[in-house]
Amino acid sequence: MKPIQLLIFIFFVSFSLPFSAQTDDKVKQDFQASSVNQPGKEFPKVNSEGRVRVRIEAPQANNVQLDIGGVKYDLEKNDEGIWIGESAPRDEGFHYYQINIDGASVPDPGSKYYYGAGRWGSAIEIPAHDKEFYVMKDVPHGSITENIYFSEITQSWRRNFVYLPPGYFGNSEERYPVLYLQHGSFEDETGWASQGHANLILDNLIASGKAKRMIVVMDNGYAYKSGAKQNAQEGRSKSAFEEVLIDEVIPNIDKKFRTKASRAYRAIAGLSMGANQTMRIIMNNLNLFSYYGGFSGTSNYPGNKKIDTSIFLNGAFEDADEVNEKLKVLWLGLGTKEPEVFFKTVGDFREMLENKGIQYTFYESPKTAHEWLTWRRCLHQYAQLLFK
Amino acid sequence: MKPIQLLIFIFFVSFSLPFSAQTDDKVKQDFQASSVNQPGKEFPKVNSEGRVRVRIEAPQANNVQLDIGGVKYDLEKNDEGIWIGESAPRDEGFHYYQINIDGASVPDPGSKYYYGAGRWGSAIEIPAHDKEFYVMKDVPHGSITENIYFSEITQSWRRNFVYLPPGYFGNSEERYPVLYLQHGSFEDETGWASQGHANLILDNLIASGKAKRMIVVMDNGYAYKSGAKQNAQEGRSKSAFEEVLIDEVIPNIDKKFRTKASRAYRAIAGLSMGANQTMRIIMNNLNLFSYYGGFSGTSNYPGNKKIDTSIFLNGAFEDADEVNEKLKVLWLGLGTKEPEVFFKTVGDFREMLENKGIQYTFYESPKTAHEWLTWRRCLHQYAQLLFK
Repeated sequence: MKPIQLLIFIFFVSFSLPFSAQTDDKVKQDFQASSVNQPGKEFPKVNSEGRVRVRIEAPQANNVQLDIGGVKYDLEKNDEGIWIGESAPRDEGFHYYQINIDGASVPDPGSKYYYGAGRWGSAIEIPAHDKEFYVMKDVPHGSITENIYFSEITQSWRRNFVYLPPGYFGNSEERYPVLYLQHGSFEDETGWASQGHANLILDNLIASGKAKRMIVVMDNGYAYKSGAKQNAQEGRSKSAFEEVLIDEVIPNIDKKFRTKASRAYRAIAGLSMGANQTMRIIMNNLNLFSYYGGFSGTSNYPGNKKIDTSIFLNGAFEDADEVNEKLKVLWLGLGTKEPEVFFKTVGDFREMLENKGIQYTFYESPKTAHEWLTWRRCLHQYAQLLFK
Repeated sequence: MKPIQLLIFIFFVSFSLPFSAQTDDKVKQDFQASSVNQPGKEFPKVNSEGRVRVRIEAPQANNVQLDIGGVKYDLEKNDEGIWIGESAPRDEGFHYYQINIDGASVPDPGSKYYYGAGRWGSAIEIPAHDKEFYVMKDVPHGSITENIYFSEITQSWRRNFVYLPPGYFGNSEERYPVLYLQHGSFEDETGWASQGHANLILDNLIASGKAKRMIVVMDNGYAYKSGAKQNAQEGRSKSAFEEVLIDEVIPNIDKKFRTKASRAYRAIAGLSMGANQTMRIIMNNLNLFSYYGGFSGTSNYPGNKKIDTSIFLNGAFEDADEVNEKLKVLWLGLGTKEPEVFFKTVGDFREMLENKGIQYTFYESPKTAHEWLTWRRCLHQYAQLLFK
C-alpha cells in the first residue's frame, strides 16, 4: 500500500475507539431523516448539531454500535429489541459510516449506498450551510451518460461517466470544452456524479452564467496493464492510468462527443490521489491540457523535503515562464480541517511555486476535512475559472 | 396495499422458515465468487448446483442466517468468529437476499446493491446457461443516460434512464423508434439498466442484426399527483403514472432526443405491475403506441372471473379488428415457475384474446420464477419483434 493509500485507509477505516452514545438531554431533539436515506426510510437521522442517529432492530444482539469518523458509539436497546443512539456532532458534509452488530461491520439498511473507503456502503449528509450551490434547482439540467469502452491497455471493459451540459442533446452543432475530473483513493468513477454532485454543481453554475457549458468526464483512476497484478489496494503495480487516459479515453471522448479537441479547451483536475495523478498527467502532457485543479493533494505527497525543481517531475516546473504560459489556471484547494500532512505537502508545493514565480490560485474550504464537501466546493470554485 | 403488491411483498420478503445450512459432503465444493460482488470481495459465492454461500465476521453474534428465497439458512461459526454457510440450490437467475445477524436484517457487505423488493440491498446472480444474450461482448455499445425532469403533475423532480443505441452520438441526423419499458412493484427506474441488463440485451441484439436500433426509456412507475398521499407502498392514491408518461415523459423524450415521434415507432412494455400499467396505458392511447409487451402480468390481475370484454378496460378489446389493426405486436411472457396466480390471470387473458380472435404472441421462460432472468428473456424475445 502506498503511503497516501495507507493514510486514507487509516483515516476512513481506522480501528475505532468505543464511545457511549450520547443520550442525555444535552442532545438537541430536532432530528430529521437524512437526505440520503432510502425511499420511505425514517432513519438514519441528523440533528442541527450534526449528530447522526441510527436505529436498527436486532433483538438478539449483545452489542450494536454506530461506526462513524473513526469512532464507535454504543447504541442502547429498548424493550422491543430496537437499538438506537447517536454520534457526537460531525462536521458539515458527507461521511461514510457503518453499523457494527456483534462484531459484524455492515451497511445501515436505512441509508443509500455509495462507493468510498474501498467499499459500497452507508453514508450520511450533514447539511452544509452553503449547500445551495449543489442542490437540485429549477434550472436546465445536463445529463450523466455511462460510457463503456474496451481498453486495449488493460484488456478489460472500462467505463466513465460523462456530464453533457444542458442543451447538448437539443442541438447538433455546438462543440464543448472538456474537463477530465478524477476521484480519490479507494473511490471510483461513480463518486463525482453521485456524492460529488458534479452535475448539479455545473448545472447551477451554468444557469447563473458563472461557468461555461462544458463536458465533464469522470473515469476510474485505477488501471493496470494486462498481466500486471490488478489489486489496486496493494499498489504494487505501476499504474497505467495516464496511458489509458491519454491514448484511449481522450480519443474515445473526442470521437464520440462534440468536443473542442485541443489543449485550449481541455482541463484536468482530481481529488487526493486524483490530484496527484492529474498533476503528473498534465505536466507530462502540456500539449494536451491548459487547466489544472488539485483538490486536497499534490504530486509531491507525501514527500517531506523541500521540492527541488531540477528533479521534481523531471524538471517540469523549472521553466516558470513556460509553465505560466501553458497553464492558464493552476489551482489548488484544501479543507481547513484536513490532516496536517496535506497542509505540509501543499504548503511545500506552494512555496516552490512562489519561489519560481509560477502563478496559481489557492482556496481553503472552511471547516471541512478530507471529504466530499471540500471537493464539491473545490469544483464549484475551479469550474468558474475554466475556458475563459 | 394492492393485491399484486401484497403478493410480491410476501413473495420476496416473507417470514422465512429457518433451515440449517447444508454443510455436508453432498454440497459440491466448486464455489466461485459471485459475478455481482463488490470489487475485491471473495464472498458471496455460488456453486454449480446454484447454492449461495455467504461469509461474515461476527464474533459476538449468537445466530447468523442467510435469508434468500423466503428461507432462512443458519450459518455456522468457526473458531475465528466467522460465520459461513449456504442455501439450498437456487434457480438460475437473479435473487435478492439479506443476512440476518441476531435478528437484524442487513445487506451483505460483500455484494453489490440493487433496488428491488422495496429496498436497496444485496442480490446474487446464479449464472444462467443462456446468459450469452445479456453479457458484455465486443460489440458496439449504446449508452445509458440519466434524464432529469420536473413533473408539473407530481410537482417533483423525477428521472428516467434512457438507452441510446450504438451510433446515436456519432451522427446528428438519424432518428430512432422508442420503447418505453417499465419496472415492477417495489422496484424503480434503475432496475432495467442494472439487474435487467436492458442495455446489453439491446447491444447484443442490434450487433447481430436481430433488433432495430431503438431508444429505450425506463421511468419510475410510481407517480402521484401533488397533494395526494405519496406513499406508494400503501397504494391508497390513484396512480398518476399514465398522465405523467403521456403528458410529460413522451413530449420530453421527443423534444430532447432524436426520436421518430409517431405511433408506428413507439412501443411500450412492462413487467409485473408494469405489465398491468402499460396494458392500460396502451389501450387508452392506441393513437400513441403500436407495440405492447406484458412480462409476468396482465391488466386483469388478480381478477378471478372470466373477462367480459364489454366492460374490461372500458371495452378496449371489444372490436377485435381494430385491436388487430392497431397493435402490430401484442406480446405476453411468463416464467414457467411463477406463482399459479400469474398463470391463471395470463391464461384468462389469453382465453379472452383467443375467443375474440385477437392475435398475440405467448412466450414461456423455461424454469424461471417471478424474477429478472424471466424479464431479461422476455425483453430479448420482445425487442426482436419491434419496429419491423
